[in-house]
Amino acid sequence: MQRVYLDNNATTRVDPAVVQAMLPLFTDSFGNGSSMHSFGGGVARLIRHARMSLTELLGAQQESEVIFTSGGTEANTSAIFSAIELLPDRKEIITSTVEHPAILAPLAHLEKTRGYTIHRIPVDAQGRLDIDAYRAALSDKVALVTIMWANNETGTLFPVPALATLAKEVGALFHTDAVQAVGKVELAVKSTDIDMLSLSGHKFHAPKGTGALYVRKSCRFRPLFRGGHQERDRRAGTENAPGIVGLGKAAELALEHHARDLTRIRDLRDRLEAGILQQVGAAAVVGDRERRLPNTATIAFEFIEGESILLLLDREGIAASSGSACTSGSLEPSHVLRAMGVPYTAAHGAIRFSLSRETTDADVDRVLEVVPGIVARLRSMSPYWEASAGAPRADFAPAFS
Amino acid sequence: MQRVYLDNNATTRVDPAVVQAMLPLFTDSFGNGSSMHSFGGGVARLIRHARMSLTELLGAQQESEVIFTSGGTEANTSAIFSAIELLPDRKEIITSTVEHPAILAPLAHLEKTRGYTIHRIPVDAQGRLDIDAYRAALSDKVALVTIMWANNETGTLFPVPALATLAKEVGALFHTDAVQAVGKVELAVKSTDIDMLSLSGHKFHAPKGTGALYVRKSCRFRPLFRGGHQERDRRAGTENAPGIVGLGKAAELALEHHARDLTRIRDLRDRLEAGILQQVGAAAVVGDRERRLPNTATIAFEFIEGESILLLLDREGIAASSGSACTSGSLEPSHVLRAMGVPYTAAHGAIRFSLSRETTDADVDRVLEVVPGIVARLRSMSPYWEASAGAPRADFAPAFS
Repeated sequence: MQRVYLDNNATTRVDPAVVQAMLPLFTDSFGNGSSMHSFGGGVARLIRHARMSLTELLGAQQESEVIFTSGGTEANTSAIFSAIELLPDRKEIITSTVEHPAILAPLAHLEKTRGYTIHRIPVDAQGRLDIDAYRAALSDKVALVTIMWANNETGTLFPVPALATLAKEVGALFHTDAVQAVGKVELAVKSTDIDMLSLSGHKFHAPKGTGALYVRKSCRFRPLFRGGHQERDRRAGTENAPGIVGLGKAAELALEHHARDLTRIRDLRDRLEAGILQQVGAAAVVGDRERRLPNTATIAFEFIEGESILLLLDREGIAASSGSACTSGSLEPSHVLRAMGVPYTAAHGAIRFSLSRETTDADVDRVLEVVPGIVARLRSMSPYWEASAGAPRADFAPAFS
Repeated sequence: MQRVYLDNNATTRVDPAVVQAMLPLFTDSFGNGSSMHSFGGGVARLIRHARMSLTELLGAQQESEVIFTSGGTEANTSAIFSAIELLPDRKEIITSTVEHPAILAPLAHLEKTRGYTIHRIPVDAQGRLDIDAYRAALSDKVALVTIMWANNETGTLFPVPALATLAKEVGALFHTDAVQAVGKVELAVKSTDIDMLSLSGHKFHAPKGTGALYVRKSCRFRPLFRGGHQERDRRAGTENAPGIVGLGKAAELALEHHARDLTRIRDLRDRLEAGILQQVGAAAVVGDRERRLPNTATIAFEFIEGESILLLLDREGIAASSGSACTSGSLEPSHVLRAMGVPYTAAHGAIRFSLSRETTDADVDRVLEVVPGIVARLRSMSPYWEASAGAPRADFAPAFS
């Protein structure tokens, strides 16, 4: 059976060239990069090279702005704790209602245990940030603004550089969780007011357990992990040299592929969306159609359950997602779709197809061949569908299609 | 040239069998373990298997006591922050003067920024903990005791189970940094009062970027990384599945090798020490000769510089260390040797040879062939050696040989 992997916002296949780059670091050049002998010497050079590749991918100013971490969650956590330690007299933090749990959960914990006020800026029906509410929340009481670059569930892009400039005006630190953006949109962080940016390697064909936090040269930083001089005293712990080298190689590949692949991926995604909407009624694309990641198609199928769709897709060899894998297993619909006001009857049936540079025309053909039948079969068993007589609700169709 | 790697306390070569176990997770079974499709399903099973192997290696009671981390430093940091969050009214912490910087640095930071009193228990000339001072520091004001199982620089073993029992009597949480002990001594954490234990994969032939925190079932825990249900809500972030599987395989190999290799390694180490001391005067083994890791030989050569010895060893293809790689690049002698009262003239010339199950008889032969000449050559250029007329200082020899 042809297997189709369209869950690349959850994780990507590691590029075989990345694995090849890592292999010598396990059993050959395995020395500790900080050691004074030749088993360690070549490693430091390889890590420097990886840091240069990341710097280029981000469009950063210099290599020292990149701190390697164990992934996006560590980068996010480090950014939050650094900010509140640097500005201890400011007790407010601004974020959005649609952030990843790796931002929302630590902020909720600070709210509960350390008396922080968290401003959660709402979004509209297309997932666009309420800029007026954002401006109103900004003040000199705000230590940190942390707003994602691209939403993991809908692909909606926030105007992060503009938001950063506004934050700077009140002296707040600005962090962006760019885990879904890096490798999918071209970044030039140098020419923005962003202070910190998180990325995760496994979202763009590097291995799991790798990531980085960008910290602008002019921005101070307080480390989460202390006790070693690694990463210029900003992240203690023996460097994960194979992972870092793999991450660097993945950054190089992303840069090479940007020019030719981002457009191709967008075309594939657009064909997937158009093909499904043409064949399936009472379905709509969720998210901002204008400003969106090129690889993400989230489609809400009214009156059926996303989990059931996934199971039937899986039987056909197709992998997709019903929202963030981090919240799967829960029966609650996604907090992102709820924040957008997507009706429950539609939010429950939302499926995210996320493509990558490995996605082919044949993959899209296969999905288009299979999805209409699955939806029809599930709807034929759905009491809600029967009650609706196949007509989408009036409050759903206009906002999301 | 025969290359000899005796810096295994810094990092070890990844076992080729570990690499083989990891490889399918990069490009084949690469799905997110939390996903609802078959690209992710097999991964969850492999992670469970790895957790069972770690449980067995630690002699823990059940798999849920193992939380996978990105390494020893994250495990240590998580343990410290969990303890102070669980017992916020207790403002004292007990540790030793010879801990790894990954413990000493975060504690110094808590002392400086959050008003904690840190009791740093001293050691004697052989690196043994001052038990009277430890007992005196224990009180119901102590939130956490964190004392290492085995010292990274000297291999000295602390009586951790007994220390944990004493800590429990005053209601303090007990954590041990067992990064150097795991894989080198047999553990049975189940039958102790230890609440938390840190380990690092790359110290026993697993890859860098892997580790774990053991948290006893009866011990509460507050996560450092929040925002995902991974590790039973105790460590958010996509699981580093290849790393975890590699760590599990390394744990299996360590268990297999314990019986036959720990004695063999000890014999090799003893032959190395005896051979050097026989051929080189004004040199002494540093650490507790009775209770010590089987793989570690730290030898202080009086009146010469450790860094010079390392450079000449490196030219001969031999890798060793002049102390923790985490503090290399500094001209200060090791804080561990200073805490033991080793005179500066000897501490500066201390070299750590750390063996592993990959160390051979031929490796030891090669070191014994090379070291005496190097020491003689450096001493012939040393003004201190000339002044001493080749005689060790009276205050050095009795305490450390």
